[in-house]
Amino acid sequence: MITVDPALAACPVPFQETDRVLLGHGSGGQLSAALVTGVLLPALGTAAPSGPLEDAAVVPVAGVDIVVSTDAFVVSPLFFPGGDIGRLAVHGTVNDLAMRAATPVALALAYVVEEGFPLADLRRVAASAGDAARAAGVAVVSGDTKVVGRGAADGLYLVSTGIGQRLPGAAPSAAAVEPGDAVLLSGPIGRHGTAILSVREGLGFDSDITSDTRPLHRLVAAMIAAGGAGVHALRDPTRGGLASALNEIAAASGVPVEIDESKLPVPPPVAAACEILGLDPAHVANEGCLVAFVAPQQAEAVLAAMRGLPEGADAVRIGTVAGGGGEPGRVTVRTAVGSRRVLDMLVGEQLPRIC
Amino acid sequence: MITVDPALAACPVPFQETDRVLLGHGSGGQLSAALVTGVLLPALGTAAPSGPLEDAAVVPVAGVDIVVSTDAFVVSPLFFPGGDIGRLAVHGTVNDLAMRAATPVALALAYVVEEGFPLADLRRVAASAGDAARAAGVAVVSGDTKVVGRGAADGLYLVSTGIGQRLPGAAPSAAAVEPGDAVLLSGPIGRHGTAILSVREGLGFDSDITSDTRPLHRLVAAMIAAGGAGVHALRDPTRGGLASALNEIAAASGVPVEIDESKLPVPPPVAAACEILGLDPAHVANEGCLVAFVAPQQAEAVLAAMRGLPEGADAVRIGTVAGGGGEPGRVTVRTAVGSRRVLDMLVGEQLPRIC
Repeated sequence: MITVDPALAACPVPFQETDRVLLGHGSGGQLSAALVTGVLLPALGTAAPSGPLEDAAVVPVAGVDIVVSTDAFVVSPLFFPGGDIGRLAVHGTVNDLAMRAATPVALALAYVVEEGFPLADLRRVAASAGDAARAAGVAVVSGDTKVVGRGAADGLYLVSTGIGQRLPGAAPSAAAVEPGDAVLLSGPIGRHGTAILSVREGLGFDSDITSDTRPLHRLVAAMIAAGGAGVHALRDPTRGGLASALNEIAAASGVPVEIDESKLPVPPPVAAACEILGLDPAHVANEGCLVAFVAPQQAEAVLAAMRGLPEGADAVRIGTVAGGGGEPGRVTVRTAVGSRRVLDMLVGEQLPRIC
Repeated sequence: MITVDPALAACPVPFQETDRVLLGHGSGGQLSAALVTGVLLPALGTAAPSGPLEDAAVVPVAGVDIVVSTDAFVVSPLFFPGGDIGRLAVHGTVNDLAMRAATPVALALAYVVEEGFPLADLRRVAASAGDAARAAGVAVVSGDTKVVGRGAADGLYLVSTGIGQRLPGAAPSAAAVEPGDAVLLSGPIGRHGTAILSVREGLGFDSDITSDTRPLHRLVAAMIAAGGAGVHALRDPTRGGLASALNEIAAASGVPVEIDESKLPVPPPVAAACEILGLDPAHVANEGCLVAFVAPQQAEAVLAAMRGLPEGADAVRIGTVAGGGGEPGRVTVRTAVGSRRVLDMLVGEQLPRIC
């Protein structure tokens, strides 16, 4: 029997004071942010990056700005409707580079494989990563493979690091958003997270939802060709969903963001799954769409450019950066019935292991 | 009770025909090579790197050659005499870049952390990685953190990817070795692997051996300043030890290599530990020494430059690339009693989880 101290039950310890890593520390929500800014960055001291946290870092090497991004993929299951861990790793890294207006040039893949993992599955994941890299026009230049004991890595983890070259004409950053910017979304939200849930053991529902995993660098190139320096910020709403992406940008730029709920494209099967599970689609992970903050003068041209590509065919304007008034850093949603609510980041874990 | 089919016991299935990943696939020996060349590279197709496998890849970005290397660290235990997984990850990546004559410019660190891992230990690892990065003069520019369930990840895995800038004057490659080259070793072998074993649960021996983990990029810069293009190949003998490093270079360059056993610097505590455990020190991992193949005209100058730095104070010449005769790709050891034996790569696993 588990007994709980009544004083503790009445007044739970705040999450900041945990002395153990929680699943929620990896969720992309507030706990993740606390872990990074409270533990990992201070520990690095002067070796840490300065400035706002971005999907990828810009590093000068011999006078050339290169863009670098690393991501660990621990998705479960390894194969899911619409993709697998190999495709996901390549697309995720290509997209993180693209969010800093970079064309992918090279990828490095590090496999951590569990002893006893079927070689056929490893071959399948590697082939899928290779196909995705070829389709994105990026070479895999470095790799590593480690094998750990049975039970240690849930089959396979895959860490992907990308090197990119900056596109001329724009330098989007989470901190570069300005009042009046249009908030554009390239396509429907919620597919990746609900696709994973649909096959996750024990959750007991099935659907035709597939992951939206795909590369977005060509979409970004088209947007920058159309909008140039008017493309202020780009982010792909992965872990933590659209809500985390909007909150991170609102906070980094110190601006209030207003979203029109009726404009949010949620596919009906995603909406149905989220209703059953009690999830907000704005908190569900995506792997094939992006949110852009664009100067009002360029917004229509950028939207038209997005709609000219398959990955942006359903692009919509979902909101605005408020001019005067509104609390800086806050994301507000105007609901269909005209009321307003704050769209927060999740505190902890909603869907573990979705990427 | 386990029963074994007598036919199987008499004629075991060759390792190439396994359909599961074995611990030995991660050992840095022949099984690792088979996994990479037989499974992972063919799966990548045209997205795979061409040419010999190196510690790091050279990638042109906007006309500048940058050097990229990725490594997954799964060492157990996380803290060991002389270091921890944070230091090891930084040094290992800095050294892989250095082996391609590159100065480290930027590091990306991806943490995979087990739920319930003590935050204090995570802080300690991150601080150690930060200290090592600062000491090596390299910035940590990108990071990622994923949390996996209890029992997965053995506490913590750390994947480190490095970006480097090429030093002018040399382009060392495993495939660039020539007949007559001197084989130089920067210091004693076997410390890292035996230090890990000394604290590994259940192995029941203790010693004062500490890991040799340290950065080698300054040593490489001094060697290239002294020997220029005469520095033909560099490798840090990590997994698989000196034997794997020598065999990989001999094979990539298609040359026979002769090593003088009496010149191999094995610290007495390492020799004692290896004797107890039945290990050959040439198969034990190192994390702070390198082997260099240098043109004979430059060998003395490079050796003198190595000895001028603490990390090369004990540098010695251990052998030669045979001119005529000798089987290309074969590494031979002249023993103290004058006989010769072939120094092979390990087939499978000797010391799992040493890096």
